[in-house]
Amino acid sequence: MSLLEATPELDLVVWPDDRSCDRTWLLGNIPGSTGLVVMLTEKVDSEILDRAGPSLKVVSTMSVGYEHIDLRAAAQRGLRVGYTPDVLTDAVADLSVMLALMTSRNAGIAMAVAKDGQWPNHPWSPFALCGPQLSTMASSPARKAGFLGFGRIAQATLARLVSFGITHCLYSSNPSSPTNHERDAELAKRYNLQSVTKVDIDELARESDFIFVLAPGGHDTYHIINENFLKQMRRTSILINASRGTLVDSDALARALREGWIWGAGLDVVEGEPNVTLDHPLVKEPRCIILPHIGSATLETRRAMAVRAAQNVIAGVLGGNMPAEVDLSGYR
Amino acid sequence: MSLLEATPELDLVVWPDDRSCDRTWLLGNIPGSTGLVVMLTEKVDSEILDRAGPSLKVVSTMSVGYEHIDLRAAAQRGLRVGYTPDVLTDAVADLSVMLALMTSRNAGIAMAVAKDGQWPNHPWSPFALCGPQLSTMASSPARKAGFLGFGRIAQATLARLVSFGITHCLYSSNPSSPTNHERDAELAKRYNLQSVTKVDIDELARESDFIFVLAPGGHDTYHIINENFLKQMRRTSILINASRGTLVDSDALARALREGWIWGAGLDVVEGEPNVTLDHPLVKEPRCIILPHIGSATLETRRAMAVRAAQNVIAGVLGGNMPAEVDLSGYR
Repeated sequence: MSLLEATPELDLVVWPDDRSCDRTWLLGNIPGSTGLVVMLTEKVDSEILDRAGPSLKVVSTMSVGYEHIDLRAAAQRGLRVGYTPDVLTDAVADLSVMLALMTSRNAGIAMAVAKDGQWPNHPWSPFALCGPQLSTMASSPARKAGFLGFGRIAQATLARLVSFGITHCLYSSNPSSPTNHERDAELAKRYNLQSVTKVDIDELARESDFIFVLAPGGHDTYHIINENFLKQMRRTSILINASRGTLVDSDALARALREGWIWGAGLDVVEGEPNVTLDHPLVKEPRCIILPHIGSATLETRRAMAVRAAQNVIAGVLGGNMPAEVDLSGYR
Repeated sequence: MSLLEATPELDLVVWPDDRSCDRTWLLGNIPGSTGLVVMLTEKVDSEILDRAGPSLKVVSTMSVGYEHIDLRAAAQRGLRVGYTPDVLTDAVADLSVMLALMTSRNAGIAMAVAKDGQWPNHPWSPFALCGPQLSTMASSPARKAGFLGFGRIAQATLARLVSFGITHCLYSSNPSSPTNHERDAELAKRYNLQSVTKVDIDELARESDFIFVLAPGGHDTYHIINENFLKQMRRTSILINASRGTLVDSDALARALREGWIWGAGLDVVEGEPNVTLDHPLVKEPRCIILPHIGSATLETRRAMAVRAAQNVIAGVLGGNMPAEVDLSGYR
């Protein structure tokens, strides 16, 4: 806000509440705007853009995704679209490691024991609440981290896992893109790993101790984590999804957890979110940790995203270079 | 068990249930034993040792702590005592990092939103569920990790934090022991930290973004985290305790959380555990993550502890070198 307020060319009209913007408020206030700043929660379609009128130059979203914006409609009207990639890499990588630890350590079940006042009645035994350990140790010296998708966030997650003693990295990514052997060798050397290897998705399922799903959503990856994949995983292996809910078949995962095909799952995203209610097959699975899509939810990251969104809208209105602009050339 | 079963000199008498051993069962079965394997949950006092009789040579506990064993009584009877240090270092360091992440990311509140079916009704706003980020990032490039106690587990925790971009390490430890400048310089170099510095406890409170309590229990550290300490911490700082509950004054911590002196707390131990019920001042604090003392609870670590405990009792009975023997010379 301070960046926007310090730009004398702008008159600001600001949704006053600390919750998602009402669509009727937006429709009522947008006519004559030159720039629009939105969140993932605001659907930006032809109706909104037409209501804004020909003065509108730019739509700036405070998110790395832009599936809520009709890019074709924006391109047809000659608009520019800004977004906030990169700045949330660290926050999502942190969350991925947190979910791996929480799932392996049965954090959901363990927290409930204390929060429900059941600690005094909880029977202690040598293997109560035990799960597979993320860290290597002398008596268990190998650990394989698998990644479905191996972009910036996956590599930032790998960097964090190295200090837990991970020894091997497997990844599966777009089969049509060539394997970057040089980059993989460099990563193995930098992190002192025994190997960094691109594998097919079946080998990823079979060989990984921890699998991190960090690939884009959309048609190509829809339900890529399905019954076939989950059945190939090990009984002590763990699945983490911090990308998009559509990559995981929730019914297949619920069955995998119920029947013990895998150890557990940690999810920051669920297909159909936020409509995930008590009757959802994953919500009551004790070995499933579910978070309500808080991947980028840190004070530092959201501030950085807000700064980027403000810079984008200012540059779009004034005709300068936007720090992160969506390439709309394919839609024109 | 397989190690014990493979030792022909031993006749095994084994408590049959997967819960703490009944004392009456133990008293009834111990007469004439040569060795005794126990957990933290079994109190080994003069009554137990007298009932065992003069045949008893060794008590082996599957734990790093041995406060449940009357060491004086054991020494007076000429017994040896085995324990399981070191093997749980990695598991507790993992848990310390997990608690830091969970506290900073509001994992308790966030999980409850999903598990209670409230995700559809949870209002989204740019800073909802946000907390201070563990990782550094371009717009927030410095992070100070503080340690109260700087032994093996603290240093293993530091090693893990390095990959999250921690820039400074502060620690406070036994004031009477000299500062190990050489070791600190070596750590700073190995982890590419701007500094590794021994500080007094007030500076530790004032300067740290994350404070990890990883010091021994007992009289010298009783309530060392008190109102005075907590009032000096920053409003965005986080306290983690994975050592012993007695180090933290629970009432002072509850007040600190209620009144916003600090951001949050993550506890694997609570004074008076396991008698921590719904009326405990920390149980209902939303910014307090409580786990029921699962620091060493991983399959790999508990297996390694079991192996060590078996090796200790075998060596104690047969008169060999125990892998980890408690020094009882001060009690004889």
